[in-house]
Amino acid sequence: MSNNNQKSVILSDQVQSPLNKLEPLTRKVFLSLNPPGPQDNRADVDQIRQVLERSCGGFVYVPLAMMPKIPSICRGANWQLTATVADTGHAWELIDIEPGDTAQEHYGLAIDIGTTTVVVYLINLCDGTVLKHAADYNDQIAMGEDLLTRIRHASEPGGLASLKSAVLNTLNRLIKRLYPLPTETSKITAAAIGANTTMIHLLLGLDPASICRAPYTPVVNNPGLIPAGEIGLDIAPLAPVYCLPSIGSFLGGDVIGGILVSGMHQQSDISLFVDIGTNGEIVLGNEEWLVACAGAAGPALEGGVTTYGMRAEPGAVDHVSIDPKTGWVNYSTVGNFPARGICGSGLVDTLAGLFLSGIINRTARFQNGQKEFVIVPAHEAASGEDIVVSQVDINNFMATKGAVNAATDLLIENVGCDWREISHFYAAGAFGQYLPIESAVTIGLYPDLPRTAIVRLGNSSGEAARQVLLSRCKRLEAEGIAGKVTYFELNANSAFMDKFVSSKFLPHTDLDRYPSVRGRLLEVFADKS
Amino acid sequence: MSNNNQKSVILSDQVQSPLNKLEPLTRKVFLSLNPPGPQDNRADVDQIRQVLERSCGGFVYVPLAMMPKIPSICRGANWQLTATVADTGHAWELIDIEPGDTAQEHYGLAIDIGTTTVVVYLINLCDGTVLKHAADYNDQIAMGEDLLTRIRHASEPGGLASLKSAVLNTLNRLIKRLYPLPTETSKITAAAIGANTTMIHLLLGLDPASICRAPYTPVVNNPGLIPAGEIGLDIAPLAPVYCLPSIGSFLGGDVIGGILVSGMHQQSDISLFVDIGTNGEIVLGNEEWLVACAGAAGPALEGGVTTYGMRAEPGAVDHVSIDPKTGWVNYSTVGNFPARGICGSGLVDTLAGLFLSGIINRTARFQNGQKEFVIVPAHEAASGEDIVVSQVDINNFMATKGAVNAATDLLIENVGCDWREISHFYAAGAFGQYLPIESAVTIGLYPDLPRTAIVRLGNSSGEAARQVLLSRCKRLEAEGIAGKVTYFELNANSAFMDKFVSSKFLPHTDLDRYPSVRGRLLEVFADKS
Repeated sequence: MSNNNQKSVILSDQVQSPLNKLEPLTRKVFLSLNPPGPQDNRADVDQIRQVLERSCGGFVYVPLAMMPKIPSICRGANWQLTATVADTGHAWELIDIEPGDTAQEHYGLAIDIGTTTVVVYLINLCDGTVLKHAADYNDQIAMGEDLLTRIRHASEPGGLASLKSAVLNTLNRLIKRLYPLPTETSKITAAAIGANTTMIHLLLGLDPASICRAPYTPVVNNPGLIPAGEIGLDIAPLAPVYCLPSIGSFLGGDVIGGILVSGMHQQSDISLFVDIGTNGEIVLGNEEWLVACAGAAGPALEGGVTTYGMRAEPGAVDHVSIDPKTGWVNYSTVGNFPARGICGSGLVDTLAGLFLSGIINRTARFQNGQKEFVIVPAHEAASGEDIVVSQVDINNFMATKGAVNAATDLLIENVGCDWREISHFYAAGAFGQYLPIESAVTIGLYPDLPRTAIVRLGNSSGEAARQVLLSRCKRLEAEGIAGKVTYFELNANSAFMDKFVSSKFLPHTDLDRYPSVRGRLLEVFADKS
Repeated sequence: MSNNNQKSVILSDQVQSPLNKLEPLTRKVFLSLNPPGPQDNRADVDQIRQVLERSCGGFVYVPLAMMPKIPSICRGANWQLTATVADTGHAWELIDIEPGDTAQEHYGLAIDIGTTTVVVYLINLCDGTVLKHAADYNDQIAMGEDLLTRIRHASEPGGLASLKSAVLNTLNRLIKRLYPLPTETSKITAAAIGANTTMIHLLLGLDPASICRAPYTPVVNNPGLIPAGEIGLDIAPLAPVYCLPSIGSFLGGDVIGGILVSGMHQQSDISLFVDIGTNGEIVLGNEEWLVACAGAAGPALEGGVTTYGMRAEPGAVDHVSIDPKTGWVNYSTVGNFPARGICGSGLVDTLAGLFLSGIINRTARFQNGQKEFVIVPAHEAASGEDIVVSQVDINNFMATKGAVNAATDLLIENVGCDWREISHFYAAGAFGQYLPIESAVTIGLYPDLPRTAIVRLGNSSGEAARQVLLSRCKRLEAEGIAGKVTYFELNANSAFMDKFVSSKFLPHTDLDRYPSVRGRLLEVFADKS
């Protein structure tokens, strides 16, 4: 495990299911050609095009950039060569040609560009497996932690260009890390990207200004296939890059990807999908309808709202348990390093523990005048001072949790269904991968469903990128999802503020919705009394 | 008439027939879009793509290069704009977007790249008319007059690049001449090119070495559509450039174009097509079969083989008549300037006159020990010395004429038909446009057919470029012709030399094939005696 919070980037085994049929964005075809002679004096390019058209069953376009090298490769390799063709949706395009049979060396990238973290997966396009991955912070952070700041920065002179090159630098650095020799990265011939709408705009050099200005229309939701060289990605210049389509300014390809990976759009039962990172997105629906809302979630789960908050890096307190009887604390840290702060999962554990111990009440307030709670005593902490959770920290966290609850409830009400009808809960992103399920249910961040109905999707944006990289069906499915989701505008809704204000209870305003938590509370109180 | 032998570049009215249906390489579509609002918040690019897909009835690709300017053009033009889309054969591609309704300003180029002369026609894509044209020598001449020299030059270090930039400089200079303001050339959104195989290779920067090396396979015969920016043409960078397909190293798109313009490939009768420029190509056939041969013709008709030979520039003797009784000469010059030399048409007239006057005999030899014949006496000539035609000049010309006759006869024999079956004769290029028909028949350069069956196609390569620029059917037709022509190899054929040696008679070895010439000879001799 590296120190670049790789914890949050591994594709969950649960969702990395084998695809029915591999139809990657690019295909490699071994060609054994006729050396030209009196019997067959077709031009080199024409012969290759004709052979490929037979093999691919459709029109094959040979770009001018490919033509000059074809004669020498043909002759140097004794007319045995391997062509890479890209699926353009309605035809094929020759994007690489290599001497000999290299059909088994076929690589693509699945890319997840988060506002905070960027992850690149090297995929074997022959069998769909992840060969390697690399993750790092998005270099754009230097120009603003959140999307709004970056969108503002983009409107300054040179701002858009510097944001674009920051994310490109991040990506190209990661690609190099996957392939020790830089020259070999040109053998990567396809890429798919899951990212929010703003990240896609900044990567493509498109002005994101309209994303945060009414009527909130992006420049593009579905950019189609773009040659890597036009974007600036250091892989084969003609490699097609597919961006998961967005639904709008606030629902990006990462969310479409999450839905795709969950499969909720193909189930008759109603599911709830929640992705909380720097932004939060909630989707409700089934095979017939999908409704979604979104908003800035704040960095609650990325450790940003508490005094001692930090990301899940070495030294972060990631698991906490509090004995309800004694109030004694047990904790662990990432990598077993001396504690430096508390990350999201540690905070959720802490809140659940404080609540079940009665140290905070249902409105998340400390009892008996207490002001803070010590998780790590000074002598165990790396800094030599107590690591604590204060009332202010808890209030900040409760704002995020309350917003999620309010938005979910509003969405459910709005479509006229009942929370009892929800049969699956999908948790995406860091939120989905590492939060302790029991604690998350205890504080009401997760719904109180049978635990088998709670599915953690891991990095569903990255996994969706892998799936669309490998499967034409999945690309069509993603576009189908994008066309099906109805966006529910929270900000325009006054009921949201009412719900938000009344949502700041542990686990929820309506305790009936949390029977298992009620049961544990009763247990604890029974034990105490 | 300019001094850049524009005489040879004007499209013959006879062949510049209106096309049944205009389906140019690019289409302009006026779009009146919905400004985005709560009811329609599609992304700008997506809305344009969807509207265009409805209008074009197929997939429309929006390249990344187009995306950044779309939002500002939409807003600046109050959502009234004109899109230019290119027909890629299997889909459409957005290549330009302009504010307002500019659908009536729609321009393309028809280009004829000859080894010697380059002509560019500005075409109104709304109605197919030629608005303007410009012609000049191919700058490549500085690197060699003939194809072989240029192919050799291309193999030297930097040679290919300098040949490519020479023809590009020529083209871009001519394009600027069509449009007084250089910036406006970006409004030209399509081009089609007729040229021989070597010219296309040099323009595209492809190594032509294999063209003159067995088994004579070009890099490409059918390059498909290439964006102008990738070639280096100074028009809209994404403008599609269509090259008329070649059949092989020695039969280029200019010949396919000639066949296309003649229509011989759609007639049940057998036609003969001859294009003699720096190279010569002969095609025989009908709607069922087409056989063609080719070879270096030498510059006989471009004025290069005679001591006083020159191109059809001001001061060139272009028409000559010799009184059979007195031997007196009447001549005219291009632009009525003092005579500087003799061009192809003047030479053909001279030979016919000398023959009919009995000054040269059927083997084209001067009678009675005469060594040369004065066309322009010293006191009328610009240089102050006699302009003459010598026996050596005549012999050189007879070599070209003999080669054409030998090749034609061999082709006819080879397909097992008889010269009496030929019902139409099509003469392309300079050879076709300006040679005096009667003189050309007299010396046997043209067959002795009813004069209405002799069709001069003018610049058929340029006209074919205009047709494929304007019509999808014509593009498919050109590709159909390319797939149908059988190449007949002259060099591999020992019968060719036999025929060649026996072909140097005026008008032909077999006088029975020239009944009208026989008649005139009899007339002249009757008058004389």
